[in-house]
Amino acid sequence: MIDITAPRAPVAPLAPTQLRPLGIDQVTLTGGFWADRQRLNENAMIPHCLHWEHKVGWINNFAAQLRGTLAEERTGRWFADSDVYKLLEAIAWEIGRTGSPELESALGEIVDLIAACQQDDGYVNTRYGNAGQEPRFSDLEMGHELYNVGHLVQAAVARLRTGHGQDDRLVQVAIRAADQICATFGEGGIERVGGHPEIEVALVELFRATGNRAYLEQARLFLDRRGTGTLADFELGRAYFQDDIPIRDAEVMRGHAVRALYLLAGAVDAAVELGDDELLDAVEAQYKRTLERRTYITGGMGSHHQDEAFGADWELPADRSYCETCAGVGSVMVAWRLLLARGDLRYADVIERTLYNVVAVSPSADGRAFFYTNTLHQRSVGSVPPQDEASPRSSGSGRAPWFEVSCCPTNVSRTFAQLGTYVATSNDRGVQVLQFVSGRITSDLPAGRVTLDVATEYPENGRVRIDVVDAPDTAWELTIRVPEWADGATVDTGDGPRPATAPAVVLSEGLTSGATIVLDLPMAPRWTFPDERIDAVRGCVALERGPLVLCAESIDQDGADVDQLRVNPGIPATDTPYGVKAAGWQTTFDTGGSPYSARSSDAESRPAAISYIPYYAWANRGPSTMRIWVPAGAEWRHEQTVGTRT
Amino acid sequence: MIDITAPRAPVAPLAPTQLRPLGIDQVTLTGGFWADRQRLNENAMIPHCLHWEHKVGWINNFAAQLRGTLAEERTGRWFADSDVYKLLEAIAWEIGRTGSPELESALGEIVDLIAACQQDDGYVNTRYGNAGQEPRFSDLEMGHELYNVGHLVQAAVARLRTGHGQDDRLVQVAIRAADQICATFGEGGIERVGGHPEIEVALVELFRATGNRAYLEQARLFLDRRGTGTLADFELGRAYFQDDIPIRDAEVMRGHAVRALYLLAGAVDAAVELGDDELLDAVEAQYKRTLERRTYITGGMGSHHQDEAFGADWELPADRSYCETCAGVGSVMVAWRLLLARGDLRYADVIERTLYNVVAVSPSADGRAFFYTNTLHQRSVGSVPPQDEASPRSSGSGRAPWFEVSCCPTNVSRTFAQLGTYVATSNDRGVQVLQFVSGRITSDLPAGRVTLDVATEYPENGRVRIDVVDAPDTAWELTIRVPEWADGATVDTGDGPRPATAPAVVLSEGLTSGATIVLDLPMAPRWTFPDERIDAVRGCVALERGPLVLCAESIDQDGADVDQLRVNPGIPATDTPYGVKAAGWQTTFDTGGSPYSARSSDAESRPAAISYIPYYAWANRGPSTMRIWVPAGAEWRHEQTVGTRT
Repeated sequence: MIDITAPRAPVAPLAPTQLRPLGIDQVTLTGGFWADRQRLNENAMIPHCLHWEHKVGWINNFAAQLRGTLAEERTGRWFADSDVYKLLEAIAWEIGRTGSPELESALGEIVDLIAACQQDDGYVNTRYGNAGQEPRFSDLEMGHELYNVGHLVQAAVARLRTGHGQDDRLVQVAIRAADQICATFGEGGIERVGGHPEIEVALVELFRATGNRAYLEQARLFLDRRGTGTLADFELGRAYFQDDIPIRDAEVMRGHAVRALYLLAGAVDAAVELGDDELLDAVEAQYKRTLERRTYITGGMGSHHQDEAFGADWELPADRSYCETCAGVGSVMVAWRLLLARGDLRYADVIERTLYNVVAVSPSADGRAFFYTNTLHQRSVGSVPPQDEASPRSSGSGRAPWFEVSCCPTNVSRTFAQLGTYVATSNDRGVQVLQFVSGRITSDLPAGRVTLDVATEYPENGRVRIDVVDAPDTAWELTIRVPEWADGATVDTGDGPRPATAPAVVLSEGLTSGATIVLDLPMAPRWTFPDERIDAVRGCVALERGPLVLCAESIDQDGADVDQLRVNPGIPATDTPYGVKAAGWQTTFDTGGSPYSARSSDAESRPAAISYIPYYAWANRGPSTMRIWVPAGAEWRHEQTVGTRT
Repeated sequence: MIDITAPRAPVAPLAPTQLRPLGIDQVTLTGGFWADRQRLNENAMIPHCLHWEHKVGWINNFAAQLRGTLAEERTGRWFADSDVYKLLEAIAWEIGRTGSPELESALGEIVDLIAACQQDDGYVNTRYGNAGQEPRFSDLEMGHELYNVGHLVQAAVARLRTGHGQDDRLVQVAIRAADQICATFGEGGIERVGGHPEIEVALVELFRATGNRAYLEQARLFLDRRGTGTLADFELGRAYFQDDIPIRDAEVMRGHAVRALYLLAGAVDAAVELGDDELLDAVEAQYKRTLERRTYITGGMGSHHQDEAFGADWELPADRSYCETCAGVGSVMVAWRLLLARGDLRYADVIERTLYNVVAVSPSADGRAFFYTNTLHQRSVGSVPPQDEASPRSSGSGRAPWFEVSCCPTNVSRTFAQLGTYVATSNDRGVQVLQFVSGRITSDLPAGRVTLDVATEYPENGRVRIDVVDAPDTAWELTIRVPEWADGATVDTGDGPRPATAPAVVLSEGLTSGATIVLDLPMAPRWTFPDERIDAVRGCVALERGPLVLCAESIDQDGADVDQLRVNPGIPATDTPYGVKAAGWQTTFDTGGSPYSARSSDAESRPAAISYIPYYAWANRGPSTMRIWVPAGAEWRHEQTVGTRT
């Protein structure tokens, strides 16, 4: 039984939560940064992903299965099917947003292939269980079979939430696949977990979208089993797939970052539906400590290339930051779920930071190439990967059109298609405006309909104007998030500006139709210092502007490499018609000799203006070096320490 | 035809070199740090390695091949055979040093097995080319077949150099294997290279030990082919196996560190024998730039865990230093060959630093557990790996008895068995004392025999006494290395101390039998600062004492974690009966909150003495955290910057 009142959103709790999501039909983006990205997704990214999934043969894998030629023809890794499913999810949300008949037809063709491949008991997978292949579930550690079904289910949930019923062909396939998982991995079945979490978050949502509690129960079983060592130990250790410590006992996120984040997202969803506050508390504590000690200034997560994993507390190397794009998507998933469950608007700060400085960094300006990893420091100029072949490498100095492991492009695509849902929430008292995007927000409160028109040039400009178009006759609340960084923000409801402090301003008077509220966020560039326990960036400072982390790219530095730059954080950086400029120095280093000596020395330096651009925009003008964290110059350090003493 | 005058040493150039090696029979170590390690090798490490190579089945692989049960029984990776060969090499040198009949018998048993496995054309490998296995040379990228033969040949060279002839069974096996490689990979054969260099250095030495120029020619072919892309590209890129750039064109070492170092060692050997100065210049320039920009203070090399590889210039994270033990061995191999070829004694500084601070760090105090990687910063306490099973992991917070990939233990063992050869060299003019070790050095110069007795407690004490026991009647030179760090060293030939400056003191008078020379090296602990381009340790300082890098281990810090320590490099650290003590502070950090903020802040701190121990000795007293680079306290930074100005 489907709840037809559920919002058109990827996360729609049945149990009561502090905040409720709005659907992508309730929030329309009409212009600006995120609307541009939705158009980029529609016009470039989705067609690009469809083209590449045909080109590299991952859609063809299903056709080959039907032809009986899988052994000879199959391409891609264990999880190639999942990238097809993620693209289906992106397309499903995009159809929900635009109603595109072309996309409906593209989706239908692929779903027909998958449906034809599905075995009688619901199992569907092009890598296992077919003639000449290894048997089903013979490699739970790395086989990704449960992971694949998870993404299939998330695509089906997108259909269920965008006007389709259980007779939808994609929904039918997913339900049969999920039922097969429940039959196989339920009590008394294979009492183990899959190496890559994802099935958990998908099953809870399938429960929400269908009302079938078996899916929630199966998600709970998977969550309870994880951390008990049902997966084999191997070189990277069981922490890699979070099978080292039960989820209720862990204190911090660890191991493969995307695995850890997908697992946490599923745990929040399950905890909410089960009313399991102990689990919710445990998971929230892990995520908070991770934000405090294992997260980059960009919101990026993952310090290790070797295992795409979190490092230890404070292990946050800028030049070896992994910050996988998919981990950014995963962190948004977790933060969004905690925001709904807890009503803590600071999670919307995390979402904003991560969307602008991880997820939006991945696609190139033309939407046809992607970063898989998002380094904070590019040391060598490198080269742009070939644009006509799938890159064998996850990291590099330029964006690639596709990857042999290509989880990221479709993950960005499905996130962009859902962007509207992250803009605002509601509760019985009112509406919460979380992200600053031009567009219309509609919510039906118990007191009546609220319609808001938002106009802003954010993040270029800090002014956000909210016009109340429709308002209930009785009292309601309008909550507007104030970011933690927005020191000096003001709000004006018509009688002049007054201070607006983080995490939010809550308005409850004068909110009648025709009212206008103006929020002004301070957008002057600001220097940001790291906790001194982060060894990798000791003595360095970053520049931020509004929600954007800025970076210095070599192409803008008058021929200097970025490693020659030193900044003076004692002098405010300023907006100029040619980008943000900061005062600093260019240094010249000695060449040769031992790098270790008895004397601490500062290199020769001459005053220079340092140019910054938004981090998301880097590497769009050819190969270059880049830094977010730039060392503070010796002269500034001198002034600072003298200043401290006098 | 064997040159029976060749020294009992692993590197014995035929072509003229600036310096000539002495054999392990010409340098005997009688006491002190390195003699202790030779005894540890004899009494613990070699029996331990033999035990484990039986236990994990790598010796049994050969027996299984004879039984025809390889398919069911074979254990270990592609290169399991090579670890048997490396142990044979260690044993062969050890027999050459001690004449042990037990070891001779152990060696003979294993060699018989290998000989019985060798195919008619000389091919021998337990992983390829046998019934039910993939064909020979079907995976040159990762199959390690040429690498395995390289280590077999190095073991055979150890036999040839320690009194055995070409009728020695191990030598026969190795020559047949090498001939098969030459027949298969010569001109008109498979014109490719192996993914892991090693065959090159082995073939040049086999040429030197047998006089068969075909081996030198084959080494030249392999060196010329490398860098031309005969290996397939893959996720980690062709730089991983140095197949991206021809060796003559490369500017710096890159890719997998052990591969890169073994390749360079072979290139130096080939350049010397071919009289190819262009190649020698190219290789020396690459190694020097690597020492200047890609080497840790310990002498360790390799910044990446993912591919066990060099990072970019200045990418030297302390907490993610890989510094594979085998890369330390490889760096000693390269430095030793360049020292002989060029006569530049600063390479003996590199060897000293690397032996004390990489190679000697690997084995535990009891010689029955090893570090594979050698981190400079252990952030979390972790746990000691189980001592009864092979570790699946290369890195961890404690030493493991064995590894699934266990290249390091036998590499340390063969190096320890050869240690004598690195202590001194000779040329026509005289003898060069390079390392300070108690023992006897003998060399037959054209002018006559020189015998020196060296007595020292180095590195605990900086006094090195050299007694001339035998001396030619005519003039000769005694050169004694003075390390670069030994500012204030003196030498006393009987008429009082006079300054001895790096890289050496050269004495040519009064060197008659009965003469005594005393070198005094300053052993006070000294602060060492990093080049400011090394982002990872900006603002930090290390403590060294003589050739030893010191470290702070948490077990000695009064309950504090090492990340709480701040030192004051303005105050000299001092030797005490309880280790080296430095002045500094213990800090207490806030918990919680964002790690990025608008203010640069120093944590609360209280004065504290910081305890240091030699880095090689760490992790011998249970799990702990550890740092080599410790941040300088804010108070010191204040004084320094004020001092600079006034």
